[in-house]
Amino acid sequence: MPDTRVTVWNEFVHEQENDTVAEIYPDGIHGAIADALAERGFDTETATLQEPEHGLTEDVLDETDVLTWWGHAAHDEVDDAVVERVKEHVLDGMGLIVLHSAHFSKIFRELMGTTCALKWREAAERERLWVIEPSHPIAEGIDDCIELDEAEMYGERFDVPQPETLVFNSWFEGGEVFRSGCTYRRGDGRIFYFRPGHETYPVYHDEEIQRVVANAVEWAAPSDERATYSQGNAEPREDIDTSDDRTVH
Amino acid sequence: MPDTRVTVWNEFVHEQENDTVAEIYPDGIHGAIADALAERGFDTETATLQEPEHGLTEDVLDETDVLTWWGHAAHDEVDDAVVERVKEHVLDGMGLIVLHSAHFSKIFRELMGTTCALKWREAAERERLWVIEPSHPIAEGIDDCIELDEAEMYGERFDVPQPETLVFNSWFEGGEVFRSGCTYRRGDGRIFYFRPGHETYPVYHDEEIQRVVANAVEWAAPSDERATYSQGNAEPREDIDTSDDRTVH
Amino acid sequence: MPDTRVTVWNEFVHEQENDTVAEIYPDGIHGAIADALAERGFDTETATLQEPEHGLTEDVLDETDVLTWWGHAAHDEVDDAVVERVKEHVLDGMGLIVLHSAHFSKIFRELMGTTCALKWREAAERERLWVIEPSHPIAEGIDDCIELDEAEMYGERFDVPQPETLVFNSWFEGGEVFRSGCTYRRGDGRIFYFRPGHETYPVYHDEEIQRVVANAVEWAAPSDERATYSQGNAEPREDIDTSDDRTVH
Amino acid sequence: MPDTRVTVWNEFVHEQENDTVAEIYPDGIHGAIADALAERGFDTETATLQEPEHGLTEDVLDETDVLTWWGHAAHDEVDDAVVERVKEHVLDGMGLIVLHSAHFSKIFRELMGTTCALKWREAAERERLWVIEPSHPIAEGIDDCIELDEAEMYGERFDVPQPETLVFNSWFEGGEVFRSGCTYRRGDGRIFYFRPGHETYPVYHDEEIQRVVANAVEWAAPSDERATYSQGNAEPREDIDTSDDRTVH
Repeated sequence: MPDTRVTVWNEFVHEQENDTVAEIYPDGIHGAIADALAERGFDTETATLQEPEHGLTEDVLDETDVLTWWGHAAHDEVDDAVVERVKEHVLDGMGLIVLHSAHFSKIFRELMGTTCALKWREAAERERLWVIEPSHPIAEGIDDCIELDEAEMYGERFDVPQPETLVFNSWFEGGEVFRSGCTYRRGDGRIFYFRPGHETYPVYHDEEIQRVVANAVEWAAPSDERATYSQGNAEPREDIDTSDDRTVH
Repeated sequence: MPDTRVTVWNEFVHEQENDTVAEIYPDGIHGAIADALAERGFDTETATLQEPEHGLTEDVLDETDVLTWWGHAAHDEVDDAVVERVKEHVLDGMGLIVLHSAHFSKIFRELMGTTCALKWREAAERERLWVIEPSHPIAEGIDDCIELDEAEMYGERFDVPQPETLVFNSWFEGGEVFRSGCTYRRGDGRIFYFRPGHETYPVYHDEEIQRVVANAVEWAAPSDERATYSQGNAEPREDIDTSDDRTVH
Repeated sequence: MPDTRVTVWNEFVHEQENDTVAEIYPDGIHGAIADALAERGFDTETATLQEPEHGLTEDVLDETDVLTWWGHAAHDEVDDAVVERVKEHVLDGMGLIVLHSAHFSKIFRELMGTTCALKWREAAERERLWVIEPSHPIAEGIDDCIELDEAEMYGERFDVPQPETLVFNSWFEGGEVFRSGCTYRRGDGRIFYFRPGHETYPVYHDEEIQRVVANAVEWAAPSDERATYSQGNAEPREDIDTSDDRTVH
Repeated sequence: MPDTRVTVWNEFVHEQENDTVAEIYPDGIHGAIADALAERGFDTETATLQEPEHGLTEDVLDETDVLTWWGHAAHDEVDDAVVERVKEHVLDGMGLIVLHSAHFSKIFRELMGTTCALKWREAAERERLWVIEPSHPIAEGIDDCIELDEAEMYGERFDVPQPETLVFNSWFEGGEVFRSGCTYRRGDGRIFYFRPGHETYPVYHDEEIQRVVANAVEWAAPSDERATYSQGNAEPREDIDTSDDRTVH
């Protein structure tokens, strides 16, 4: 995927306010993810909340095949106009990878239409992400499950629409389960929600987690030749009588 | 279903402005639908755009098991606060039946997360709604397909998320197809999009169309005993160490 | 559901050969399930492997709305002709509830088209069945999850087609997860696979497990008025030229 | 996809018995499909019913990434042992493209678990295959719909399990609709059912149809790095008490 262009977005708040987080992610969570993707051959840029228009101008999005999104403490500070712009690009074909606490981001909730609420607990507990669909490209390279020693727990009932494909299903030490890898199509765009990744645990330094994010980016990238279509008022394809004049339009 | 309470909502604009429509629906589209449901034993009320809060106050929605929605010319006049209130009720379990041109209603677009755009044509052409899943309760009583002599055409690409179950699939005289009966779950609520029904054709007087709307209302009605669940910060179910103090919350 | 007729099928081998099992299920697993359903108002019969035609004659199936199936040690002893007969009835609308180790039954594998293989372990470990879709009728009456103190473990990768709706998702003490409540449609029939239930643990005496089985039976029962349809060579609905004579039939 | 190896299977009966068919497909339907795929860069072989083991020996299947299947008059002549062998390879990851009248092939019916029955009519009528999911790779390169001047009609109710993704939806001149492009996962394998293609019409010479078959082959090809997993008796991942000795195994 030498020509897939990825923009890695991060709210970049915890890293600047908290030493524990800064130590784990000295270049920000965006830096860690961007590096992991660049190493795997993607053409990678970053953008953060603090930049003008959060770094997500029309120009940037026009040049983006797949956007990854991490947010947690500052969902409300994301400008509604930027959210609408991102949404339009997704519906127009841009891939979107929604990471961890971004389940509560404006953009994900807008695209899902639900609350995206869930159970959670911070206890540095063990998580296992079991592969449910081994033939899915997002699961490539994984053997049975990914094991994380320290994870925040997310538990069901996760209020999202049923995914098109459930790729990963998580087990937590404290007793819960979670649909942790979910694919969706919205408009012309492909979306992947991927659960792992907390600011106080070094999850994005994990090789297997990086592999899945890279797989997801590759899967979500739009094709240059994808199907086209028209919408709106349409002439008939068959020779039919169109003289009905009862319209109130 | 003697105790299922249905609120039939209609923007009620065409009927008051256009003689053709008024002739077909002298009591409004809401009147026709409400009568059809009342005849089949449902406890039925109506509400329209022109009423205070569009007739959809918190009290009304609290007493509503299933809301049916018809709109076309005045989607933008529906107050955003009312849309949010309806959405909350749907996510909380209220059934929602979205009819015809309400594909472009604020409430449907909010719940779907997509543009809900499609092809359309007014040519009083023939439509056949073929049953795709005969075992689905919404298709009860239908033999092979429903045939409508005069229908507005809606054609694919219909920009909605993939339905949980595709119940009906439409054929149009002019050459198009359309997924015309689609079920969704959003939050605790069940949603059915049903395509037929135009202001200038007497579609809601058709017995089979009425039957499907009634089937859908019955299917979408929430159970008094439906599963409950908690969300938010959760105590572990297993005896695990919860002493991690790295949280930045 | 006073008039839903259920046939509870059991291979009835362990109970006759093993004292531990006989003590837990003195009337057989079929007896326990049939009693639980009868108490909830279903019209219930039982059938076992040892009966002529395994108790599943054409007459019995004709009078059955929903069949529940438990097997483990003797899948291969089930006659292929009986399996075909059951399959035909399912495709013709009879509900089928597939329980626990019946994941490897001939009838389930025939209807799924896959190996239905999984991971397993007998360690009397704790299982929690978390509700994934609270609005689904099969989850009625459950609060968050069902907890079983002693269960056989079943783990992913469970080789089944993606379910229409994932209703329950299981957590196991030893570290695995499992899609433990899965709905399918096949032909005109509704199928529910429900994981719990092992011969050496008293799972079918659990009130919540009984409730789910009863919910599933109610959900799977065919409607008397379900949609009908024709198949095979079809006359055109439109006036088209049918004079093409190139057929090689 | 220079290294994707495709085996194009054809029963090759009509072409040898009927002049009309032989004229349209002088090299057999398999020849036409294989040529179209070879032109697009695939490493292509053919196999037919008349060859020993129908040309589908263990060695051939071991060297096959994706198998395409066309059959019509001789489904019953396909040896059950070969069908089982093909099924095992599909469940083990080999892609399968099921074409037109192969809806009634043993292999498709085995993998679907249903009758796969449908309506049909030979009247050389017009078909339009509308794109339902423009972001799906199988739809690449198509604009709105594919139009075929002469097609056999297939109509709903098509008795198959709900597809994972409905990619194409067909309109027929005589009044019917049909889910004409359906994806499935079974085991580790990806399956695509594609409706077009009749022995008496030159459908497989159509560029757009060829494009879709090629897209489907590319989509269905297994990855060398796809996820792996174990099944069967499993050691616990957590430190739990495994001393339960009630097993009857």
